[in-house]
Amino acid sequence: MPRTGRRPGATGTRDRIVNAAQDEFGELGFEGGTLRGIGRRAGVDPALVHHYFGSKQQLFVASMQLPFDPSELAHVLADGGIHGLGERIIRFAVGVWEQPAGRRVMVGISRSAVTDPRAADALRSMLESTLLPIIRRLGVDHAELRASLIWSQIVGVLFGRYIIRVGPLAEADPDDLVQRVGPLLQETLTRPMR
Amino acid sequence: MPRTGRRPGATGTRDRIVNAAQDEFGELGFEGGTLRGIGRRAGVDPALVHHYFGSKQQLFVASMQLPFDPSELAHVLADGGIHGLGERIIRFAVGVWEQPAGRRVMVGISRSAVTDPRAADALRSMLESTLLPIIRRLGVDHAELRASLIWSQIVGVLFGRYIIRVGPLAEADPDDLVQRVGPLLQETLTRPMR
Repeated sequence: MPRTGRRPGATGTRDRIVNAAQDEFGELGFEGGTLRGIGRRAGVDPALVHHYFGSKQQLFVASMQLPFDPSELAHVLADGGIHGLGERIIRFAVGVWEQPAGRRVMVGISRSAVTDPRAADALRSMLESTLLPIIRRLGVDHAELRASLIWSQIVGVLFGRYIIRVGPLAEADPDDLVQRVGPLLQETLTRPMR
Repeated sequence: MPRTGRRPGATGTRDRIVNAAQDEFGELGFEGGTLRGIGRRAGVDPALVHHYFGSKQQLFVASMQLPFDPSELAHVLADGGIHGLGERIIRFAVGVWEQPAGRRVMVGISRSAVTDPRAADALRSMLESTLLPIIRRLGVDHAELRASLIWSQIVGVLFGRYIIRVGPLAEADPDDLVQRVGPLLQETLTRPMR
């Protein structure tokens, strides 16, 4: 249905509202976003937004679903073993961020996580449901610490690239970014720790 | 003057308001903080806050000064050369965060940076006024890229430790954190890049 909207699949009013909410929270964070602003973006009355989703909190939860299944992903990433895993992790993350829907959700969650506990939980779940199971399965020592350090590097790159917009991170070609960050994650996975 | 307040040096009303603003913005971010809330924390009328600082923006700028002089710091950190520089950088950062005033300011700037351009500028200035001059002076290749990657790692650890509160990062002893992160920063400074 190529003529129904700017985003494939966003055909119904409900989907339009969800997309609008992703844009609103992505730009303004949970704190700054309003049902009025979301209605305006979706081209519908705020009362209709309220009718579909109830509160701003409920719409936030509905619109900020991680754009992948964490436990399925953990399987896929860990299947190749530790060799090249750092690169596979950052390649997957960059792949999500470089798709419009994935970027809206991840930037929205990150922007909101600084003030909203639900968004902070979502960001923390990337560690607990994805990175930690992968790294545990490999049987390396200090799995929790290594997973947290990898998480912090990914979050740092996401902030630098899409939110604070730091020159070299914001401008890097996606493949280049993977080549730069992958070896640092691999070092985090493999360096001896006492 | 040990009996005048909970923080040494916070003797005048103006200082009390600045401290209260650091707490307020540190917990709620720029977007969520209010002059009323700051007045309540400082134990003064909001009108007095307004009298001293004008707008919320002006108070934010006054209260969110980096707790160190970036260009002086750049000299001090770079003077030892590249050997052990990764560790010196993270040791300095952790040292700032572990002092109450430093932490209030850095957490406040970081929480606010996701929605407020002035706070984002302050976070970016850590890269441009501190990390980049240090790394440029060393004469390594890809100085901007390496500096940005180090910046993103430091920001990621700050978020994980103080804002999202990710277990192993939040709980690590400061020295231990320096020992874990320092070698990763050193790798970022020294690994060959094409």
